Amino acid sequence: MEVALMQAKKSCPFIHLTSNSTLKRLSANAASTGNGLLRKAQQCPVMSQAMGQQHQARAISTSSAAAQAPSKVAKAEVKVAATPAPTAATPVTHQTKAKHFDYEAFYQHELEKKHQDKSYRYFNNINRLAQKFPRAHTARVEDEVTVWCANDYLGMGRSPVLTETMKRTLDRYGAGAGGTRNIAGNADLHLRLESELADLHHQEGALVFSSCYVANDATLATVAGKMPGCVIFSDALNHASMIQGVRHSGAQKKIFRHNDMAHLEELLQSVDPSVPKIIAFESVYSMCGSIGPIREIVDLAKKYGAITFLDEVHAVGMYGPRGAGVAEHLDYDLNAAQPMMGNGSIMEEIDIITGTLGKAYGVVGGYIAGSALFVDMVRSYAPGFIFTTSLPPVVVSGALESVKYLKESTGEREMQQLNTRDVKARLGNLGIPVVPNPSHIVPVLLGDAAAAKLASDELLSEHGIYVQSINYPTVPRGEERLRITPTPGHNAKMIDHLVDSLETIWDRYDFKRVNDWTAEGGCAGVGVQNTVVPTPMWTDKQLGLDQKVVEEKAIRSGASLSV
Amino acid sequence: MEVALMQAKKSCPFIHLTSNSTLKRLSANAASTGNGLLRKAQQCPVMSQAMGQQHQARAISTSSAAAQAPSKVAKAEVKVAATPAPTAATPVTHQTKAKHFDYEAFYQHELEKKHQDKSYRYFNNINRLAQKFPRAHTARVEDEVTVWCANDYLGMGRSPVLTETMKRTLDRYGAGAGGTRNIAGNADLHLRLESELADLHHQEGALVFSSCYVANDATLATVAGKMPGCVIFSDALNHASMIQGVRHSGAQKKIFRHNDMAHLEELLQSVDPSVPKIIAFESVYSMCGSIGPIREIVDLAKKYGAITFLDEVHAVGMYGPRGAGVAEHLDYDLNAAQPMMGNGSIMEEIDIITGTLGKAYGVVGGYIAGSALFVDMVRSYAPGFIFTTSLPPVVVSGALESVKYLKESTGEREMQQLNTRDVKARLGNLGIPVVPNPSHIVPVLLGDAAAAKLASDELLSEHGIYVQSINYPTVPRGEERLRITPTPGHNAKMIDHLVDSLETIWDRYDFKRVNDWTAEGGCAGVGVQNTVVPTPMWTDKQLGLDQKVVEEKAIRSGASLSV
Repeated sequence: MEVALMQAKKSCPFIHLTSNSTLKRLSANAASTGNGLLRKAQQCPVMSQAMGQQHQARAISTSSAAAQAPSKVAKAEVKVAATPAPTAATPVTHQTKAKHFDYEAFYQHELEKKHQDKSYRYFNNINRLAQKFPRAHTARVEDEVTVWCANDYLGMGRSPVLTETMKRTLDRYGAGAGGTRNIAGNADLHLRLESELADLHHQEGALVFSSCYVANDATLATVAGKMPGCVIFSDALNHASMIQGVRHSGAQKKIFRHNDMAHLEELLQSVDPSVPKIIAFESVYSMCGSIGPIREIVDLAKKYGAITFLDEVHAVGMYGPRGAGVAEHLDYDLNAAQPMMGNGSIMEEIDIITGTLGKAYGVVGGYIAGSALFVDMVRSYAPGFIFTTSLPPVVVSGALESVKYLKESTGEREMQQLNTRDVKARLGNLGIPVVPNPSHIVPVLLGDAAAAKLASDELLSEHGIYVQSINYPTVPRGEERLRITPTPGHNAKMIDHLVDSLETIWDRYDFKRVNDWTAEGGCAGVGVQNTVVPTPMWTDKQLGLDQKVVEEKAIRSGASLSV
Repeated sequence: MEVALMQAKKSCPFIHLTSNSTLKRLSANAASTGNGLLRKAQQCPVMSQAMGQQHQARAISTSSAAAQAPSKVAKAEVKVAATPAPTAATPVTHQTKAKHFDYEAFYQHELEKKHQDKSYRYFNNINRLAQKFPRAHTARVEDEVTVWCANDYLGMGRSPVLTETMKRTLDRYGAGAGGTRNIAGNADLHLRLESELADLHHQEGALVFSSCYVANDATLATVAGKMPGCVIFSDALNHASMIQGVRHSGAQKKIFRHNDMAHLEELLQSVDPSVPKIIAFESVYSMCGSIGPIREIVDLAKKYGAITFLDEVHAVGMYGPRGAGVAEHLDYDLNAAQPMMGNGSIMEEIDIITGTLGKAYGVVGGYIAGSALFVDMVRSYAPGFIFTTSLPPVVVSGALESVKYLKESTGEREMQQLNTRDVKARLGNLGIPVVPNPSHIVPVLLGDAAAAKLASDELLSEHGIYVQSINYPTVPRGEERLRITPTPGHNAKMIDHLVDSLETIWDRYDFKRVNDWTAEGGCAGVGVQNTVVPTPMWTDKQLGLDQKVVEEKAIRSGASLSV
């Protein structure tokens, strides 16, 4: 053991930097995939891959090791290899408790399924550095990479506008809220943030939650669950939080094909006009970058007496003159000229808007906005709002500053869009397949789980670039991808390096290019014949893309101007 | 209007301090109970009471006002007073869309129900001051009160141990995590916190969530939902988050009477031995302060092949030599002498422990701890964990420091217990009814919703003390109470003032004392004949209550020693 350790110390930076006693302690918990040395190994790009390939063998050895440790696994007297699923009818047998269900074997079996369908997730250790945005250090602080997949789209998380305010709030109000909103956890900051959000979306009220996952889940479950006979019409690509909310409501659900208005109308027609109806959809769909047809859905909602539930999670801060999202962006000039409630923007026709404080706004938390009665009803009935500690004042103050700042400052979102256009265009020129869309998301198609993971791993280990691979169930099988998110903080050199690195990897592994997908008849919108390339939501005019700006941008990027 | 405003400015501190233009803006949104002047009024102890009594009238006038505003309410063309519930069969009628469901009327109707059964909640505006703990300012920064009901039980939220660390983390890692745990949001801090929590509870692994509400909900829903035929045995007083988790799992549920082991065993016997079973319960039940019989439940679980799910939310940081909770406290000496996994403590026999970072630890967030396979399974399958932005590094670093600090320092929890004993004893001496319990909660029984609200309002407005009233559905009707939570930061003068203020209010309104409850046969454990007073979980010995300490405490509290 000691000899092996000495040798390992030479080649592995983690082991090199870790004391023998810590390694022994970690090793003593080796039964664990949640902790211990195995967990550390899973964070290592070299070891995790090896372990992924050998998971079958590992499953057996882990169980054996565990059985020798004074642990939960030993206590349950598990004897597992790659066992069939334990069921009530056929429990896994062991020595003394033959009649009892074997819980550890059950967990192991469920994990095996994840390994077998390649959907088991290995988390990368990524520590985003505020002073070096968009750089991060990995498990070793010396090893830095450029993050190209975070949802801190505008880099607000490192903005002193937020962090200095938050430090002052820590001094003034401490670290936590100290209670639920009803019991000691309702500060002026919460009320101010909610006023600010209501104003942002031209709605009467807003309500802040722990996250937008909770906001979506709790709101749909509460409202649809209470309305008698409610039917929910849900876009096929809706986020997991909305799917859970629909499920938890117990309401009848009708799923319409993604952005398919004819299908939605067909489904709406099938339900009695007097029945309460909710159409739940998103503005920006985060994994493909498509944008929901807001006007058309509002029209259908009015025609059939439905209310609209619009998730603007990936759009708030990013679209519209004040960053209220795509619904605001659709009436850009109107909302820029008259940024107040009552201006008649389509945004005001949405019944329920939900958003996050954890992506473009750079902090954490979620919210809903809508009519005063609607908001008050959710406030009064949703257990996920009522029975939980409220967000700390320090978090709320950061979010509040961020929302206020991005109401005024448009430079960040414009620069983000310009960088997005750059990355999309340059990958397009190389034939590297980008799923076409009008938004700020750059989904690079691999179409295979192993290929996507390989590309992600190689970007990290060889090129110092972090882009997480997106596999099933987040995207359909065969549509696996890298999801790239440019920010205003990615400079020209970083963009060059990203594009060059992808080209190197595509060359090295002969990954499919647009032509290959075209030959196969297309996939996920890539290489599909006779499709119209979507017009970007941010127009050339909105981005000020006249000749002067183009020239400045060329200078900034270090390219020589062609005369 | 102007004259009325001038007059109001003289008597109302809020209006006095608010500009005319702001008041007009607020007034323009007056339709809102979520925003606007009405919302401000609801925060006012004088106005909110008046509004509570006149809610019927208000409902009508709010709707009328709203109908004139260019708002959501107007858009929906609502004509509501105190309408019956709109249903699909009998929709509320209005001019142009007679066939469509009236959503605003529905929300209004649901809110009316809350007003009518007195369960409508008015949030107090409470801003807890870090430098003056446990003081807070209200809507006016000049108006300070002493908070006696927060769940920042040990005052860790204002500790420089946390806040200075958090400020450094803000500088280093910024305001937000930037993604889910799988995509850019998994930092070393998250892993370190989870290792620390696993170690705290002598479990193999731990997993951090947005909140313990989410942790309980997602974990029960996922695990019980996946295990074939699972039956959940749930204590009748379990928290809303567990109730939701059970519901969302779709598993069969059997509720046992609170802490009733005979009933639990009877229910366990009724289910096939091979069927997977979860016994879900709490250590400290927060509204009555009772403590779950952990050893007995573990014994029953083993006997019937169930696993145990123990919510230690109100106990972590507060009990045990390292603050791991009641399960650790039960083997206090063993865990103090051998604070490591494998020592055979009853804590290690618990299968699943859940806790919060938002109460005694003073920040926000929740977690589960258990076997490595269990934790990995929840990590891999629970949508509420997977599809949400992870907690910001700044929050995680604060929580990590708090957990580490309270593993070493016992002074805070001991002082909290001593203050709890003081308050309970002194109220007991005055005959003010405290629901008897062995924990740190001081539930003062009113037994009537209006009385509880009156006591709470009067404490706030007349005595500068904030204790939220706890009404149905949080406690059963007829058991309404004030829930008082002493902290180490409440000094002798504050305790004197609290006790004197309660005595004044009890005198003034002739609220029921213990004798009155005894005469009525008892209520919520108060005045029940022949009941044994529960022995405090923290024993005299554990608190060092020998003569010397008693003397010191007497001196500290300014009382003269009786010889």
